[in-house]
Amino acid sequence: MKTARSLDSLLAPSSIAVVGASPDRTKIRGILFHQLSTSGYTGRLYPINPGYREIDGLKCYPSIAAVGKHIDLVLVAIPTESVLPVLEECAAAGVRNAVVLTSGFAEQGGEQRELQGKIAALAQRTGMRVCGPNAVGFYNDRDRVAATFSPAVEVRPGEQPMPSTERRVGVVSQSGGMAFTFYDYGRPLGLGFSYIVNTGNEVDLTLSDFFAYMVEDEATSITLLFIEGVRDPERFIAAAAAAAEAVKPVIVCKVGRSQAGERAAASHTANMTGWDAAYDAVFQKYGIIVANDPEEMTAVAAAFATCPMARGDRIAVITVSGGTGALASDALSAQGLTLPEISQAIQEKISALLPAYGSTHNPIDVTAQGSLSGGLSMALTLLSGSDEVDSILLVGSLASENRVGVDVESIKQVVSAQTKPVLFYSYTRPSDLACRKLAEAGLVVNIHLTWTARALRALVDRGRFKASPPIAVRRPVSFAKIETALRAARDPLSEYEAKELLAAFGIGGPPHRLVNTPAELQAAAASLGWPVALKIQSPDIIHKTEVGGVKLNIGDPTALTSAWEGMLAEVRRHKPNARLQGVLVQPMVPKGIEMIIGTIRDSVFGPIVMVGAGGINTELFKDVTYRPSPVSADEAHLMLRELRSFPLLEGWRGSPPADLGRLTELVAEVSAFAVAFGDTIQEIELNPVLVHPRGAGCTIVDALITARKSDGSAGINEHKTLGGNRR
Amino acid sequence: MKTARSLDSLLAPSSIAVVGASPDRTKIRGILFHQLSTSGYTGRLYPINPGYREIDGLKCYPSIAAVGKHIDLVLVAIPTESVLPVLEECAAAGVRNAVVLTSGFAEQGGEQRELQGKIAALAQRTGMRVCGPNAVGFYNDRDRVAATFSPAVEVRPGEQPMPSTERRVGVVSQSGGMAFTFYDYGRPLGLGFSYIVNTGNEVDLTLSDFFAYMVEDEATSITLLFIEGVRDPERFIAAAAAAAEAVKPVIVCKVGRSQAGERAAASHTANMTGWDAAYDAVFQKYGIIVANDPEEMTAVAAAFATCPMARGDRIAVITVSGGTGALASDALSAQGLTLPEISQAIQEKISALLPAYGSTHNPIDVTAQGSLSGGLSMALTLLSGSDEVDSILLVGSLASENRVGVDVESIKQVVSAQTKPVLFYSYTRPSDLACRKLAEAGLVVNIHLTWTARALRALVDRGRFKASPPIAVRRPVSFAKIETALRAARDPLSEYEAKELLAAFGIGGPPHRLVNTPAELQAAAASLGWPVALKIQSPDIIHKTEVGGVKLNIGDPTALTSAWEGMLAEVRRHKPNARLQGVLVQPMVPKGIEMIIGTIRDSVFGPIVMVGAGGINTELFKDVTYRPSPVSADEAHLMLRELRSFPLLEGWRGSPPADLGRLTELVAEVSAFAVAFGDTIQEIELNPVLVHPRGAGCTIVDALITARKSDGSAGINEHKTLGGNRR
Repeated sequence: MKTARSLDSLLAPSSIAVVGASPDRTKIRGILFHQLSTSGYTGRLYPINPGYREIDGLKCYPSIAAVGKHIDLVLVAIPTESVLPVLEECAAAGVRNAVVLTSGFAEQGGEQRELQGKIAALAQRTGMRVCGPNAVGFYNDRDRVAATFSPAVEVRPGEQPMPSTERRVGVVSQSGGMAFTFYDYGRPLGLGFSYIVNTGNEVDLTLSDFFAYMVEDEATSITLLFIEGVRDPERFIAAAAAAAEAVKPVIVCKVGRSQAGERAAASHTANMTGWDAAYDAVFQKYGIIVANDPEEMTAVAAAFATCPMARGDRIAVITVSGGTGALASDALSAQGLTLPEISQAIQEKISALLPAYGSTHNPIDVTAQGSLSGGLSMALTLLSGSDEVDSILLVGSLASENRVGVDVESIKQVVSAQTKPVLFYSYTRPSDLACRKLAEAGLVVNIHLTWTARALRALVDRGRFKASPPIAVRRPVSFAKIETALRAARDPLSEYEAKELLAAFGIGGPPHRLVNTPAELQAAAASLGWPVALKIQSPDIIHKTEVGGVKLNIGDPTALTSAWEGMLAEVRRHKPNARLQGVLVQPMVPKGIEMIIGTIRDSVFGPIVMVGAGGINTELFKDVTYRPSPVSADEAHLMLRELRSFPLLEGWRGSPPADLGRLTELVAEVSAFAVAFGDTIQEIELNPVLVHPRGAGCTIVDALITARKSDGSAGINEHKTLGGNRR
Repeated sequence: MKTARSLDSLLAPSSIAVVGASPDRTKIRGILFHQLSTSGYTGRLYPINPGYREIDGLKCYPSIAAVGKHIDLVLVAIPTESVLPVLEECAAAGVRNAVVLTSGFAEQGGEQRELQGKIAALAQRTGMRVCGPNAVGFYNDRDRVAATFSPAVEVRPGEQPMPSTERRVGVVSQSGGMAFTFYDYGRPLGLGFSYIVNTGNEVDLTLSDFFAYMVEDEATSITLLFIEGVRDPERFIAAAAAAAEAVKPVIVCKVGRSQAGERAAASHTANMTGWDAAYDAVFQKYGIIVANDPEEMTAVAAAFATCPMARGDRIAVITVSGGTGALASDALSAQGLTLPEISQAIQEKISALLPAYGSTHNPIDVTAQGSLSGGLSMALTLLSGSDEVDSILLVGSLASENRVGVDVESIKQVVSAQTKPVLFYSYTRPSDLACRKLAEAGLVVNIHLTWTARALRALVDRGRFKASPPIAVRRPVSFAKIETALRAARDPLSEYEAKELLAAFGIGGPPHRLVNTPAELQAAAASLGWPVALKIQSPDIIHKTEVGGVKLNIGDPTALTSAWEGMLAEVRRHKPNARLQGVLVQPMVPKGIEMIIGTIRDSVFGPIVMVGAGGINTELFKDVTYRPSPVSADEAHLMLRELRSFPLLEGWRGSPPADLGRLTELVAEVSAFAVAFGDTIQEIELNPVLVHPRGAGCTIVDALITARKSDGSAGINEHKTLGGNRR
């Protein structure tokens, strides 16, 4: 069994051969070899190129075979057509890993896609691990292995490494450009890195493989993922679950959220990006922090690298400028964080060190003068030792190249104690001096206010996150019956059929009868109890109301006859050719809060369960939330709390609280149903579900089930209309 | 009459005296004098300090009077207690302007507030303009007048000015720290500035005065405002209207939006921050761009400084990296911008210059190779000349200190033509070389993806913005009657009273009758027509439903009697001491879309009109929008289009379109009503208003009017509950 650990010999190899090595630094393979040989790599290095006898003072070999020694890693940067023969040679020589930087494979389509398939088959057959093709390579910053032609690993003039912390960030990116963006931005701010990996076309090794490695790796504390599309959802989810278990923060950017973004991500590494709500549901389930902007990702990573997680959402702002204190307070409040007033006792102690125009409430404005006279240090020290706030944001100007206008020593003491998160936002461009001094004190200087606030929010969210225990879905007794019905279905199931299947799984709606004659109709109404509702049932009629196919509040036998006749006449007029299955008779149900419950089979992650505000609000306000199925009732409860309309369920303005217990069970049951029939169900939509007061349960008013098409495909566009099927 | 032009002698003075000048550069007044004397100021400069005979080679005077020459501007940086005498001396000597940098006035409270009042009185009496106290001063970057001790005006080692454009940014800030943040960040990116002004405690000259100056000033193309609270709303609005008229972009950050932010802004310059929705309503009306983050403000200002406004929302992304192209596309789409596919003709021309793995749809991925081989230039040139897109975003990596990996010359040609906006986002830290080269080509390098997208959005929004013509509100014939009723009201007016006043102004609801006896009741119902609704009327009962005070759908005289008796019994049981005015009888109204219309008297900007989704959605989804009153029906239409629930009004899923014409008129009428009675009305809330299908009008179902308290105060917290008064 391969474990993530087996990538040690790729990322920290004791020997590397570079096929295509060249002394010509205007060429990519020349840059690659030069960067690797000068970056400080201490293992054995073999340039391979029949055209040279030595390069940069190292003996050059005509072929892999000619090396005659064990090779951990081969970097391949040669013309496309030569890649496969060289990889075969590598496998024959017992090479353990290859990174193919050459482009021109699946991303180009046509025959080249087949060529890539042959590389995949080679990796599968021989066990040699292959990263790429079409990859920018990787950088191991601990062992200084620059196996990449990215210019970002070059040290800039005058730059010295200055990691603020021992906690290193690992980057796995499906985009070559973005992989090194985080390194480029984070390094001068004091962020330390373990590995930066670009996975290219993922012919063998995928983002999930490297993700799993980072989670296991002791040198990596935080993982940044840049995702275009996951190819191996099971491995991805296993790594995500392991990270949640190990309490290792994971920060992700998923592109292809928009139509144009999807087009771009799909074309450039020949990857399907999938449905973004499904990705977000998976991220949410495993406590993965989502950030959609590289600057935001860097700020969040820096916070996790330098701070413990937050115990709560109470923040103190300590600033040297009133205006920026107000600005920072607004930015924090916009993230839902709170700024409590500081206790009188602490205020008095700080106040003694401030000029009269300072302010000690919260934000605490120590003023420029109070910063120098010990007010800032006092505030920081007292608040870090008190239980009044859970995190501290320092706000100051670090522009000066000559001096750092804050007491770095006291910051260092507080930060090294790691009792609670402390971040620093500079509202001016920080000088190199200031960045260095703050890094020595254990802090990364933040230069984006909004992302600083977002980072504090992430420390709170991750601190609160608890992994949900795994859930086993039983195969129901009625499995064969339901499965058979679903396989036979060509069209969306009618309400009646859908409710019968749900009932067979144990998900009960209100009692109902399907009737086909006036006699059956009267008998059904009499036994169900007055008043009743009638609904036409037909695979050809999705929008029953539009064709007169719904009659409500029928109070007696005479009205029932007239409703029946009227309905049939209207339906026949609107839809003369509709196949009618009968009329569904139900007792009128009491009022309740309208919700929607549904599932969708995502092409990557399988059935995703959804719950939200029902009726027209589903579409107007998009007040819905998603999770990968199955979910427990507890998880369903967390989902409901994310809704803006949640207060309605808790008892709005004196109305009784709704039956949350039954609602959460129902969400869990529907998600289990979707998992049990994952092969045959495309989509379930219960809309509306009426939630009655506590103890009175829920009523599934209407239900729709769409069986999976025989080709197994899930149209992304269909997903995006969920909630719009019925009204 | 003072015009904004009269500030010329303050901001571009031909002579400056510095009271408190010192050679000691560890003191604020020493830094102030040093910066001013070495910054390149070419006018006459008089240090004033009895302790010195000369400073930095300039003759030093013992007092203002001793100078004996005309002085345009005096900078005052001396102990608090000496400020007033010195200002009196200045006024006596005919000094035209003074900037007081000394702190310790109103922001400190108590007696110091009175001292500040004396400075205000002096300015008023003598006509000498005073900026401050408690100000950081200003910087005039055109004439190099560094009248500030802010270290941001120091030139950093190795830095050279490199404005990318002739369009300069003027900054007016109520926060000293923030004023120079924009300068500090913008300057090295190639942004040019005219003036940076901090207004301090605004004893005389206010943010609005300098704002008006920037709008009139030919050297200032874009104005940045950092606002804690506006003291002179009329002047502010006049400047905003002038900016809208002159098509000069204004970008604003308003702090104090959160409770803690409000506390900070209020304490630090002794300023009330006011209600943020009222500010936003004013900004919206005058096309002012709101940005809540200094990085965002800088990015938006840079876009206006380098680009024409956009003609539409279609964007092309040209990138050198597929992953970043997808990322940028998502960021643009998140701002509601569109990325159309590029025409076949243009795609073919670009494609010829790209390697096979490039992509020409949109985003256009020219690849690193295609960037060098002319693909980027070709794409840029063709798209800037075509009508297929309205703006272009270039995405690249500018990290290298040795070369700029894009064709700067072709960028320069396209940018200088100014046919459409072109922005550049670098996904790596741009080198100084790259920033300089791009500035020479007329571009500011963007380093924040989200704010780059936001800046493109702002170019679209400002391009579409049209100033609304001013509206005169007539004084109605019934003015005296309504005014008298409002002045007499101690409690919120009952529905009946409110509707009577609205009707007197010409805002009609459905017919109704207030009845007090069973006989009146039966007569009213018979004349209004069955079925009817009954509602209890009492100043002591706001929430009628809760006390059984509403009975609906009463179909005949018997049911009417029983509803009447039942209602009175229930109300007496719940509220035995309530003063009853009678029962309102109305015909049941047909269904409609529930909206809310209201007005609130803001303490700064007066009556603000609001329209939004009614019923519980007002509070749950906050789907409401605001404008300063009065609005025209056209403006009301624009307001409705901002609502997420607007599609409901247009005809949702086949239902008929609502009577938008009548609804927008009603909003305009209510806003005019609030203006006509601005002295006596605190708040109006019509909730719900039912909007019927086109031609069928609107029904004001319930109405609440709160008269203004005699002390004229408007509680901010009351504001925040609008929409929560009734259910």
